[in-house]
Amino acid sequence: MYTFYYGVGTCALATHIALEEVGASYEAVRIDMVGGQQRSPDYLKVNPKGRVPALATERGVLTETPALLAFVAQQFKSANLAPLDDPFAFARVQEFNSYLCSTVHIAHAHKTRGARWTDDAAAMETMKRKVPETMTACAEQIETGMIKGPWVMGDAYTICDPYLFTIARWMELDGVDLNRFPKIKAHMQKMAARPAVARVLAAQA
Amino acid sequence: MYTFYYGVGTCALATHIALEEVGASYEAVRIDMVGGQQRSPDYLKVNPKGRVPALATERGVLTETPALLAFVAQQFKSANLAPLDDPFAFARVQEFNSYLCSTVHIAHAHKTRGARWTDDAAAMETMKRKVPETMTACAEQIETGMIKGPWVMGDAYTICDPYLFTIARWMELDGVDLNRFPKIKAHMQKMAARPAVARVLAAQA
Repeated sequence: MYTFYYGVGTCALATHIALEEVGASYEAVRIDMVGGQQRSPDYLKVNPKGRVPALATERGVLTETPALLAFVAQQFKSANLAPLDDPFAFARVQEFNSYLCSTVHIAHAHKTRGARWTDDAAAMETMKRKVPETMTACAEQIETGMIKGPWVMGDAYTICDPYLFTIARWMELDGVDLNRFPKIKAHMQKMAARPAVARVLAAQA
Repeated sequence: MYTFYYGVGTCALATHIALEEVGASYEAVRIDMVGGQQRSPDYLKVNPKGRVPALATERGVLTETPALLAFVAQQFKSANLAPLDDPFAFARVQEFNSYLCSTVHIAHAHKTRGARWTDDAAAMETMKRKVPETMTACAEQIETGMIKGPWVMGDAYTICDPYLFTIARWMELDGVDLNRFPKIKAHMQKMAARPAVARVLAAQA
């Protein structure tokens, strides 16, 4: 039995979907990100970094989306969420997830989390203005060089898919015209039709 | 036989060290980052993202440091660079590497790569000014909550170690006083004493 800490609208959605896809036994705990609960003394005991997601297991708390997604895939191996026994194919999966966390998520974060990198309000405004451009460039990379289709890795549904779904929802809000990116758009629709995804979206509503 | 593309002073150092530690057969190709070779048409055929590192294998090109490090560990399993068969322990390794790539590397990048996130020169200056503070906060997290010592994961040398070494070298240049962080400082010294590390630093010199 895990305890899964998430915030609405955050990248925790990806791991939440993965947990639901594999039928993990977990309790989902919502952290009030707008109210700053992620920086409360109680939550900092769970995750000293003050971020979500966090997954409390019997051996300790795990964080960071790419790590959590690979953990779920490995722990629930029979669900086949990653090609764990093929180093090259697994690296492809991890490469995709690493790009999402270190490039795309970061591009997005400059819209509302600029205070992480500057103390200047005017500078934050200039960052915010660039987000539609940077997120569109990321969408272009994903569309043209990364999604094989219909799922990210081709015919197999993997831990890349809930993560792309999470990020693609941000793209829409960040001013990316998804009509220019038919593979990403079709992927979103295919994801939304999955029962596990619908359950998680309902739980987070 | 791999071809490994790196740039001096970049995060490619981590994977370069890992390749050397396992005794992989590879040719190292230096990309002139200052001259912008990473955006040349030839290199964009290798990595359309225009970044290093990239590892050309017989099955295709792999990118993204955390993915490459896990790939090296898995492909050269007998070198024991990661606890691959223990999902929780492997997630700890990946969590650490994911933190380095998505938080620490990003904090560092605001010193000289601000143009990724703003078009405004004055805003870039404000980002640059905050780097010593953000990198020090990252060092604090690593020192107090992440390094077990003497290696990142404790007694076992893993793929976390060359990555921390790479990032700790940036910390020094980014205004972090490493005397405040004795575990990180001791780790750097221990890394520098490894023959594989010395060979890679000499090759990149």
